[in-house]
Amino acid sequence: MEDKIVRPSEQQQPIRCKAAVCRKAGEALIIEEIFVAPPMPHEARIRIICTSLCYSDITFWKMQEPPAIFPRILGHEAIGVVESVGEEVTEVTKGDIVVPIFMPDCEECIDCKSKKSNLCSKFPFNISPRMLRHDSSRFTDLNGEIINHFMCISSFSEYTVVDIANLLKIDSSIPPNRACLLSCGVSTGVGAAWRTANVEPGSTVAVFGLGCIGLAVAEGARLCGATRIIGVDINPQKFDIGKKFGLTDFVHAGECENKSVSQVIMEMTGGGADYCFECVGMASLVHEAYASCRKGWGKTIVVGVDKPGSKLSFNSSDVLFQGKTLMGSLFGGLKPKTDVPILLKRYIDKELNLDDFVTHEVEFKDINKAFDLLIKGQSLRCLIWMHK
Amino acid sequence: MEDKIVRPSEQQQPIRCKAAVCRKAGEALIIEEIFVAPPMPHEARIRIICTSLCYSDITFWKMQEPPAIFPRILGHEAIGVVESVGEEVTEVTKGDIVVPIFMPDCEECIDCKSKKSNLCSKFPFNISPRMLRHDSSRFTDLNGEIINHFMCISSFSEYTVVDIANLLKIDSSIPPNRACLLSCGVSTGVGAAWRTANVEPGSTVAVFGLGCIGLAVAEGARLCGATRIIGVDINPQKFDIGKKFGLTDFVHAGECENKSVSQVIMEMTGGGADYCFECVGMASLVHEAYASCRKGWGKTIVVGVDKPGSKLSFNSSDVLFQGKTLMGSLFGGLKPKTDVPILLKRYIDKELNLDDFVTHEVEFKDINKAFDLLIKGQSLRCLIWMHK
Repeated sequence: MEDKIVRPSEQQQPIRCKAAVCRKAGEALIIEEIFVAPPMPHEARIRIICTSLCYSDITFWKMQEPPAIFPRILGHEAIGVVESVGEEVTEVTKGDIVVPIFMPDCEECIDCKSKKSNLCSKFPFNISPRMLRHDSSRFTDLNGEIINHFMCISSFSEYTVVDIANLLKIDSSIPPNRACLLSCGVSTGVGAAWRTANVEPGSTVAVFGLGCIGLAVAEGARLCGATRIIGVDINPQKFDIGKKFGLTDFVHAGECENKSVSQVIMEMTGGGADYCFECVGMASLVHEAYASCRKGWGKTIVVGVDKPGSKLSFNSSDVLFQGKTLMGSLFGGLKPKTDVPILLKRYIDKELNLDDFVTHEVEFKDINKAFDLLIKGQSLRCLIWMHK
Repeated sequence: MEDKIVRPSEQQQPIRCKAAVCRKAGEALIIEEIFVAPPMPHEARIRIICTSLCYSDITFWKMQEPPAIFPRILGHEAIGVVESVGEEVTEVTKGDIVVPIFMPDCEECIDCKSKKSNLCSKFPFNISPRMLRHDSSRFTDLNGEIINHFMCISSFSEYTVVDIANLLKIDSSIPPNRACLLSCGVSTGVGAAWRTANVEPGSTVAVFGLGCIGLAVAEGARLCGATRIIGVDINPQKFDIGKKFGLTDFVHAGECENKSVSQVIMEMTGGGADYCFECVGMASLVHEAYASCRKGWGKTIVVGVDKPGSKLSFNSSDVLFQGKTLMGSLFGGLKPKTDVPILLKRYIDKELNLDDFVTHEVEFKDINKAFDLLIKGQSLRCLIWMHK
C-alpha cells in the first residue's frame, strides 16, 4: 500500500483525493476528485485503508426523501491511518491505525462512563450530514460545492475526517480486512447476543433474518455458549452459510406448512427460544420473534432497522402475563472503545470468526459491484480496498 | 377466634358454613350458607382466618361478560388454617397456617425449578372458575347448585378448598392480618421492584398509579435502596400516604401545565427515571412510562392489568434507538414458595412496611363495606375478619 507523505505544513491544507460520491438516490456512485478539508479541533483526518458495505449504506443510497440528502459520501465500516489531527486531539496521532465507529463514545458523559449504556449523551447518535461536534462538512467537490457526510464517517473516500469520539485506535498488527468488519455490522450482531441479551451458556436462540447482522448474532450466541441456534430466513441456502457461525437449526420462513414461524419454533423448542433476535427491520417479524420466545424469561431483541414511523404492537395481556422482555440493541449494546477491543482480541485468539463474513473483495473503482452483490443477497461483506 | 373441631371421620364430609356469594355482576355479595366439599387429592380444605379485598376482585365482580361467571365466591388474598387434606398431600397438615397464592408453584416443572420464571408450566395461571388440578368446583349452595371458584382461592368463605400448588405454609407466629397482605397485592408491587426490575441502589424510580400495588412498588424500591421514588397520580393526597412507603417526589397527573407527565419526569430527573412502573392498567400510561424512562438503560415494567384486547404500541425506532427495556410483571415476578417467605422475614425484621397498607378492618358480615371503600379510593387494604 502506498502511504501519502504529509509534511507538517500540509496538515492545514485540504487534500485532493478520490471519493465515491452519491449524487442521486439509487444511482451508481461516481468516483470523482474532491477536497477534504483539514481536521477541526477534536477531529482527525484519516486515510482509508479499506471499507466495507453495510446495508445501512444501501438504505440511505436508495432513500428519496429526507433524511436522505445529496450529494453525499456514504460508507461507515472502515479502517484507516491517521493522516493528521486537529487541535485538542491527544487520543490519536499521525500514523495510528484507527477503526471509525458511527456510535460516538466521548468517554466523558454519564452514559459513556456507565457500564449500562452505549448511547453517548454528549453526542447523541443521529444521521446528520454534518460533522459531530462542528456543524459543518469537510468535503467539497472541485466546483466548491459542499458534499455531505454520512453517519459521521463517510468512508467511501480515500480521505475522510472523523471526530475522535468516533475513532478507536487499534493495534497495527491486526489485519485491516478483518478489523474493518467490527466497525459496524459484525459488532452489532455479536454485541446484541453478548451485551444486550447477555445470552446464557446452554440456551436456545432464534435469529430472524440471516444477513451479515443475523449471522453475527448467531456467532455471538455461539461465543456465549448457546447450544441451540435456530436461523429463520426465506432463503434456505443461508443454513449452510450459517453453520459456519454456529447455526444448528433452520426454519424456512414461507415454507412452514400453514404454521407461523413462531408455531414452528414453539414446537421445535418445546415452549419457545430463550432469546429471539429480529435482524431484518420488519414489525411483523418482531411480533413473530416475541411470540417465539419462552414465557417466563424469554427476551426479544430488536436489531433490525425498520422504516421511520413503523409501529410495534403487543397485546397488553401478553406483555403482563408472559414474563417476556423486549429490548432494542443499537450497535449491539457495545461501548465502542471498551468492547470492540475485546472482540478484536477474541478474533486474534481465534475464538471469533470474522474470516467467513468476507465473501468478496473489490478495488475502490469497482465499488458499485459491492452494491450489486449486497442488493442481490450474494455477499455478506464485500471489502473495498482503496489502494491495492 | 373459634376453631371448628373436625374429627377424622368428618374429613370426608362436606362442611356447611357461610360464604359471601356474588350472584350477579356488580350487586352486593350475599352472605349465605353453602357446602364446601372435602378436598380431592393434592388439595387442602382451609378455614379462612382473614381475607382482604384486592382490586382484581372488584374487576371480576363488576364484569358482565365471560370470563365473568356467576354465582361465584370471590376473594384471593387471605390466610387460613388447614382443616383437612386430600390424598397425596404431604406438604401441609391439619392445623398448619397457610397463605393461599393465586399463582401456582408446583415446585416440579421447569419453570418452578428455574430461578428465572414464576410462571408454572404444569398449572398455567388462568382465571378458570374450577379447581386447578381437578376441573370441578368444591362449592354448592343449599339447593345443590354449583358455585364457581375464583383464581383457585375463593377466600370470601369461612371454608374453601385450595390446591397445594397454591398454598404456602408459614410460621404461626406471624400476625395473620399482615401475612394476609402478601397473598397478592403487596407482594405483586414489592416483587415488581425487587424481582422483576431488580432495582439498583441509588436509582430513580417512577410509579404510575398509587393504589396498593403502586405503593407496594414504592416500598419495594425503597427496600432495594432507590434514592428517588416519584409517584404519579391524579389524587394529590396520595403523596402523603406514599411517603410512608418511601415516596420522595410527586407528579400530579392532569395538573402538569400543558406538559405530559413524561416531560415533567424527564425534567425532574435530567433525562428520565431508571425504572418506571405502570400500576393502573392503561395503555396510555404504559406509553408515558416508557417515555419517562432513561435512554440507555431505563426499564418499563407493566404491572397493571388492562382490559382484554388492549394494545401497547411503540415506535419501532424508539425501541431500537433508545436502549430501553419493556417487561411484564405477574405477581411481581415472585416465586410464591421461595420469595414470599423472604418478604415475611423482612416484615418480621421490621424492614418491610406492611402495617400501613391496612387502612380498614371489618367483620365478614360487613364485607360489602370493603367493596365501597376500595371503589371510592378510601382504602388501601381493608381486612375482613371471618370471626372476631
